[in-house]
Amino acid sequence: MNAEIISIGTELLMGELTDTNASWIAGRLPALGIQLQWVSIVGDDLPKLTEAFRKGWERSDIIFTTGGLGPTQDDLTREAVAAALGEAPVVQEAELENLRQWFRNRGQDMPAHNVKQAHLIPSAEFITNRNGTAPGWWAERDGRHIVCMPGPPGENRAMWQDAIDSRLKDLIDTEVTITRNIKTLGLGEASVDEIISEFFGLENPYLGIYSKADGIHLRIIARANDEATARGMIAPVESAIHERLAPYIWGYDDETPELSVGAALVARGLTLATMESVSGGFLANTITEAPDSSRWYRGGSVAYTPDAMIAAGVDAGVLETHGVVSQPTANAMARAAQCATAADFGIGVTGVLGPDELEGHRPGTIHIAIATANGGPAREFPLRTPPRRLVIKRRSCNTALTELRKLIAEVAL
Amino acid sequence: MNAEIISIGTELLMGELTDTNASWIAGRLPALGIQLQWVSIVGDDLPKLTEAFRKGWERSDIIFTTGGLGPTQDDLTREAVAAALGEAPVVQEAELENLRQWFRNRGQDMPAHNVKQAHLIPSAEFITNRNGTAPGWWAERDGRHIVCMPGPPGENRAMWQDAIDSRLKDLIDTEVTITRNIKTLGLGEASVDEIISEFFGLENPYLGIYSKADGIHLRIIARANDEATARGMIAPVESAIHERLAPYIWGYDDETPELSVGAALVARGLTLATMESVSGGFLANTITEAPDSSRWYRGGSVAYTPDAMIAAGVDAGVLETHGVVSQPTANAMARAAQCATAADFGIGVTGVLGPDELEGHRPGTIHIAIATANGGPAREFPLRTPPRRLVIKRRSCNTALTELRKLIAEVAL
Repeated sequence: MNAEIISIGTELLMGELTDTNASWIAGRLPALGIQLQWVSIVGDDLPKLTEAFRKGWERSDIIFTTGGLGPTQDDLTREAVAAALGEAPVVQEAELENLRQWFRNRGQDMPAHNVKQAHLIPSAEFITNRNGTAPGWWAERDGRHIVCMPGPPGENRAMWQDAIDSRLKDLIDTEVTITRNIKTLGLGEASVDEIISEFFGLENPYLGIYSKADGIHLRIIARANDEATARGMIAPVESAIHERLAPYIWGYDDETPELSVGAALVARGLTLATMESVSGGFLANTITEAPDSSRWYRGGSVAYTPDAMIAAGVDAGVLETHGVVSQPTANAMARAAQCATAADFGIGVTGVLGPDELEGHRPGTIHIAIATANGGPAREFPLRTPPRRLVIKRRSCNTALTELRKLIAEVAL
Repeated sequence: MNAEIISIGTELLMGELTDTNASWIAGRLPALGIQLQWVSIVGDDLPKLTEAFRKGWERSDIIFTTGGLGPTQDDLTREAVAAALGEAPVVQEAELENLRQWFRNRGQDMPAHNVKQAHLIPSAEFITNRNGTAPGWWAERDGRHIVCMPGPPGENRAMWQDAIDSRLKDLIDTEVTITRNIKTLGLGEASVDEIISEFFGLENPYLGIYSKADGIHLRIIARANDEATARGMIAPVESAIHERLAPYIWGYDDETPELSVGAALVARGLTLATMESVSGGFLANTITEAPDSSRWYRGGSVAYTPDAMIAAGVDAGVLETHGVVSQPTANAMARAAQCATAADFGIGVTGVLGPDELEGHRPGTIHIAIATANGGPAREFPLRTPPRRLVIKRRSCNTALTELRKLIAEVAL
């Protein structure tokens, strides 16, 4: 089944907003066995939109759209679909009453222009929107489909989960597609590619390799008539990857470094604290992205000067002897963070963020340490990254978390 | 001049990567007086790409592309442009030598497949790439243009600044376009809209209103035959906006809250420290996005438990009497941060990040305080946001920084 996505809105063409809906939808299609062929962005312009729908109706089995379902004059998705299919929209009393109720629940009268959102063409059905007033449209004719969703991510993602995903699965019931993501850190793309080269180039199971901010990801996709067969096709590839890359694997599927660390800590009832200079709060901010982080994260400090490091418990002698940009300082930071909050693990991250050199070291020079409550020596992870701010912050954060993830299982506490 | 953008790469269609290049380019075109009509994403597929270029060549004066300029078999942008224009690519010896030198500088031999990057069609010129091996292409024929850039943002943005922006300005030399962005925080979009309503709806100068993570932005765009005239058209609108919205304005043009705060602190030789709970490191991480932050940021702590707050200098009595989620605690955090590092300003941010309630307060309840070295009472900024993690972090960070920005000028230190 061939698909295309049309993202609708003049604000996207003005660069005022980055379209994240298309890539979100795109990421869901391979596992459904749907091949995405085109993505376009079209402004709030009826002739252009209608042309885009006509073209899409010719070349694609299914068109997904986001945006243009609001109540204003600029919201033209419904009008364009109707024009492209040559059908006339008619107001639907039941939906009109739903809309009125939505406003009544908020103590308001429905503005007159919202009536527009209760219109439907004969080929289409509404898709319920639990997070807003704009219902979606699902048009179907001659085995082709147009699925219209609102622009706000909170609305279209909820709609996808509530109604669209399951209906797509029913449409494509001949095959099951199973995917498995394996996430590594510590080897470059070329090295990973070489180590498992014989699995690339197959159609089914398909193996993809992706270079991401948190390392090299491998994605195995298998299609079969039933789930057990698909899983059976994935298993040998996965176990070969595991055999050859085990020391570098830190997570699977939707895991992020912080979710993976959090789950491992919670499973053992352990806690974490941090002290960072070079990553400037990126590490703490990433950790607190995990919704349950208050269960296992004690807190941290962003020590941006030697005095702030000393105030946070780093021995002034270590700083004097070895300098701020050194492995002994990272070790002392990790230990100070762990001690100050009586956490089970302490992470210390120091280095040079730039733009200037520090103590003769160039931006991107990083030292990471992990200290444990058992009092043993800190684990040391020196690192070198390109001298770009975001890369330095991200790479030091991801290395610290993925190395901690591997340590948690090993350490006796 | 009508433009379209084609973003190239199968990874974009697989949802493995979000296309941020198109919106970046789109954001630069209005000020150049170029009207963007279409954006498409096309995979690494020669017939589809060639079709996209043929269509674009028909309907647009200028086509911008990103991606598909690498050395591999999947990189097909050059081939598709050549096919669409009916021209044959020929290897250019000078460029081939540049490529060889690029590898030699890195102590490597040029891999054979990189020869591809030294090919050119008669209508095109190379665009120098200072951050990678792939040179861009600028094809021009019959007054139409195709500008091909590499996919990595670090490469295409540098190319834009080095060569593309100035050539576009030369192309469109009949008019000058001047833009002025004014950034506010503290009023909703509807209120700002109402206060300056009479300026909307004009064509020239055009006034746009945009709801952003750091508040409501206003953008004035004026076109004229010379810069002085364009500036003269902007001035009365800007001064009217300033008159009516001054207490809410925190920055102009490309300023971010952290750059704006940094510039104001550096101008007065002052420094800052932070203590945050609810924002979980987002504040420190945002501050350290400013390249010169080590000049004015002393550091901070992410206190994720009451014990961590006490360890960082917050009075246990305040926590006991008022609770973690309270204005007095935010004040004590601000004061403790300021004292611990002898900074001129201390920011304290506490509240509920969720997903659970804390002390009976719902996620999104926030208290911000700013303490100053002159020992006066902390300034208090209570805040309520929707209960979503990123919104809570962002809004508390932006409020803290923009309120600090306004304070810096006022306070005697």
